[in-house]
Amino acid sequence: MKFKIKRSILLNALANVSRAVSQKTPLPALTGIKFELTDEALILTGSDSDITIQTTITDQLEIIEPGAIVLSAKYIVEIIKRLDSDDVSIFILDGTLTRIQGGSSKFDLNGTDAFDYPRIDLSQNGVHLTIGSQLLKGLIEKTVFATSDKENRPTLTGVNFKAKETTLTAVATDSYRLAQCTTSLEENQSFNIVVPKKSLSEISRMIEKDENMDVFVSDHKILFVVGNFLILSRLIDGAYPDVSKLLMNNFNSSLSINANDLLKAIDRAALLSDDAKYIITLSMSPDRVRISSNSQEIGSVDEELPEAFYKGAPLDISFSAKYLNEAIRSINTETVKIQFTENMRPFMITDVDHDDNIQVILPVRTY
Amino acid sequence: MKFKIKRSILLNALANVSRAVSQKTPLPALTGIKFELTDEALILTGSDSDITIQTTITDQLEIIEPGAIVLSAKYIVEIIKRLDSDDVSIFILDGTLTRIQGGSSKFDLNGTDAFDYPRIDLSQNGVHLTIGSQLLKGLIEKTVFATSDKENRPTLTGVNFKAKETTLTAVATDSYRLAQCTTSLEENQSFNIVVPKKSLSEISRMIEKDENMDVFVSDHKILFVVGNFLILSRLIDGAYPDVSKLLMNNFNSSLSINANDLLKAIDRAALLSDDAKYIITLSMSPDRVRISSNSQEIGSVDEELPEAFYKGAPLDISFSAKYLNEAIRSINTETVKIQFTENMRPFMITDVDHDDNIQVILPVRTY
Repeated sequence: MKFKIKRSILLNALANVSRAVSQKTPLPALTGIKFELTDEALILTGSDSDITIQTTITDQLEIIEPGAIVLSAKYIVEIIKRLDSDDVSIFILDGTLTRIQGGSSKFDLNGTDAFDYPRIDLSQNGVHLTIGSQLLKGLIEKTVFATSDKENRPTLTGVNFKAKETTLTAVATDSYRLAQCTTSLEENQSFNIVVPKKSLSEISRMIEKDENMDVFVSDHKILFVVGNFLILSRLIDGAYPDVSKLLMNNFNSSLSINANDLLKAIDRAALLSDDAKYIITLSMSPDRVRISSNSQEIGSVDEELPEAFYKGAPLDISFSAKYLNEAIRSINTETVKIQFTENMRPFMITDVDHDDNIQVILPVRTY
Repeated sequence: MKFKIKRSILLNALANVSRAVSQKTPLPALTGIKFELTDEALILTGSDSDITIQTTITDQLEIIEPGAIVLSAKYIVEIIKRLDSDDVSIFILDGTLTRIQGGSSKFDLNGTDAFDYPRIDLSQNGVHLTIGSQLLKGLIEKTVFATSDKENRPTLTGVNFKAKETTLTAVATDSYRLAQCTTSLEENQSFNIVVPKKSLSEISRMIEKDENMDVFVSDHKILFVVGNFLILSRLIDGAYPDVSKLLMNNFNSSLSINANDLLKAIDRAALLSDDAKYIITLSMSPDRVRISSNSQEIGSVDEELPEAFYKGAPLDISFSAKYLNEAIRSINTETVKIQFTENMRPFMITDVDHDDNIQVILPVRTY
């Protein structure tokens, strides 16, 4: 293997591909990035076996001798980053010893034989859909924060994507709150899958432009095509729980309020809470809306929300400030609408005008 | 105690005073900031008993009723930061329960009686000197990084300031390298003290303007007057070791090189080192200067420094890349001069034209 390439192109490719690599893998070859040089292109692959990122480079590349090698992700990225030259030459010196040369610097890195790298199938087959990249990014960012961190219910650690006819729904819940976001597809589709949150965060991070992108859903995996990058993720096995009981619509009262005012008030009220979930209390009547919290040890906070409009019977409801903060940020609108049933029933946060993004929070009991 | 104050003024004062406060103190009152309201001013004090920061506020302050209280540093800073109003009112409600009010928010914070706060003497006495604030900041920043982290030789964890006639010398060493910086004083002085590094870092951070500042040195403490702030630090007891044997001047050879080129080359060479001190080797002859390092496991790096000028017999010398990096950054000049005796003797780094900042590094043996 021998080639010369523009340093900035290689660095950008490596920086993205290396995001899939984990240093904690049982398979040593997976701590590296696979370099495959064909007669036409340089193919770079990084994987932790849950997620794989691959890119194909043809631009500003001089292919001297095809071949393949696996180079430590940790070192190759740092080397390419710190070289001082416009171009970099990479070639195998002897066995797996690989020289990386740029300017007056020469690095000789011990590589791993490419045969030791697992075979990963990145072929584009299965159910095919086309979706706007910013639409997909929106679905991910408006739901992924509500996934669970606990491994005891694996499906809850991912986002459930359900396609039915031309509607695509993304749902995440950690069983204390729920985030749901809906969009339209151009063609009829039918699938019901759970994608791990780490994969979704990487995909969202890699989406920059607004363009149509291809997605392929198969039995145990999903493949995204983002620009020059292929991102393959395993799916989480198991049926996603039925969340319809959290998505009720028999509300008794409703609050509409400026999102930014509410965010700041939540932030202040959460300050003195000694609970890790920052429990705060909203006390509402048509005359007056207050937010408060208190800690025996530290003290208490109480403030009025002058620009809040409440319709319904007086209600006191306590919940996690962190969850309401994340729900409001997800909805990302000027005025939010919060609808309540009673003080121990879930409440729903939406945009005042739209309901394509629904956020549900379960209250907590305070004593 | 009752007063009203402009929020931004209080926030700036609290942010600085709270830097002295540690949450890990055996004396609970020291986790708080002491508020003392006299007929003329608000005096705020924070301390961890090693370092004390105090400020006196008279501007944009409405004194309603003098008094005193200690409020948790952790909470009061965050509360003042998050309030939405221009002004803040603070007053004792009952006992030590203190109300902080701004806009439509009310916080009731459990305080601590001011009598429980230790008496700290911040009187301005002892040996008095006047020094330019940027000069002092320079002395600190060019030496403090070379102090030791190990508590077994306490004096090495601080910087030694020695005044003799009109010369002030700051020295720090961790016994593997040494940093020395010298400046002139306007009047004759005589003292020899060791100031803890944490105190120096705080003082350096608080110096913004270039102005004359007052410093008072007494037996066990040093007081700095920085703008509206008083900073009192304990001194480290014990005699500072004699470092003159590290400051030799019988050199056999010398290298002059662009500081930035050398920094980048060090950075690359250190990359593959598997030692925590990043051992690299400089190989010099009048024809050629190379920098290299290698790790059995990872690989090796070798590069030429084309713009390096070496005079003397050929020499290979190995040392910590981290130490040389910090020494060069401290000298902060375009061209550095490095002078050598032999491969296991300390070498000295200075500006090519000045020697008010001297950096010394001990080489290591490589096998």
